[in-house]
Amino acid sequence: MADVIDRMSTLLRQLPAVGEKTAQRLIFHILAAPPEYGRALARTVEDLIERVRPCRLCGNLSEQNPCRICADPRRDKTSICVVEKVQDLMAIENSHEYHGFYHVLGGLLSPLDGKGPEQIGIEALIKRLPGSVKELIIATSSSVEGEATALYLKKRIEPFGLRISRIASGIPVGGELEYVGSGTLGRALAGRREM
Amino acid sequence: MADVIDRMSTLLRQLPAVGEKTAQRLIFHILAAPPEYGRALARTVEDLIERVRPCRLCGNLSEQNPCRICADPRRDKTSICVVEKVQDLMAIENSHEYHGFYHVLGGLLSPLDGKGPEQIGIEALIKRLPGSVKELIIATSSSVEGEATALYLKKRIEPFGLRISRIASGIPVGGELEYVGSGTLGRALAGRREM
Repeated sequence: MADVIDRMSTLLRQLPAVGEKTAQRLIFHILAAPPEYGRALARTVEDLIERVRPCRLCGNLSEQNPCRICADPRRDKTSICVVEKVQDLMAIENSHEYHGFYHVLGGLLSPLDGKGPEQIGIEALIKRLPGSVKELIIATSSSVEGEATALYLKKRIEPFGLRISRIASGIPVGGELEYVGSGTLGRALAGRREM
Repeated sequence: MADVIDRMSTLLRQLPAVGEKTAQRLIFHILAAPPEYGRALARTVEDLIERVRPCRLCGNLSEQNPCRICADPRRDKTSICVVEKVQDLMAIENSHEYHGFYHVLGGLLSPLDGKGPEQIGIEALIKRLPGSVKELIIATSSSVEGEATALYLKKRIEPFGLRISRIASGIPVGGELEYVGSGTLGRALAGRREM
């Protein structure tokens, strides 16, 4: 049987952006830390995989079901923000600019990869629409798949008579114009607003 | 009590070079992987802190005591290679160029930080010398502390009449001369060998 250090290294190298050197550095950090740290880490990894599940309403990952956002009576019931993945939901939450609900698609339309509307959570989203929802904000990325998914969603949702919006594309805040790609600059110009 | 995802993020951010975004990426990777992966990870972290201890002879971290290297009868008993830390020992092992034993100091001399010969494993090394050892290779880094430690070791070990050597400093293999620091180039020139 392989040494526990080798086994740990093999497991860590399956994580994104962790190579042999990084794995080694992580292992020595865990060994140098008080043992309580390693125990807490082991227990929390265990908790993570045993307790965290997708929210049955929005698809957010949470210990609660419905998740903390869906269960929060202070959130704005009139708005749903559609995102590709849970990381995007968290990024928007961290901006503190949005107070409605979410819907996590779990992917983008990509016919070549066999991802149609049934594979991503569009039907589940449509079931949530009748009721208090008045606005749907489509916050998929501005990649080809993100735009295609946004367009498809717009067509499917239009019959419900909601306000449908798309998050703005443009130059990042704090970004230098000279380093921004031409596609982004084109979007930023096309989407200009009167001052 | 904080959400398990938040707790996991807090723990991961204590690891070297792991910030909020990386922690999030790691968490979602663990959640997306088969649950066996997370269970193996948790169990192996636990094993790591419960089973791995410094070798009582050389200071290497190992499940065995003495460690696999100290217990290996095929190693060259006449040579001890002195390194600062276990990572350095592993780097030398990976070069497959050395077949003797090691001694891990666990630090370098640094009087300003209160690190004298007693704080690093120099006395333990001296106790190992009488016997079959004929050569001591000092493989501390070529930093100020690494050089000071090497000089101090040389003085302490000289009375034992061993061959004492220092690993070579110079340009890295595959490195471009123009990107190598002037200190390194100076060492490389001073240490030149006839072809």
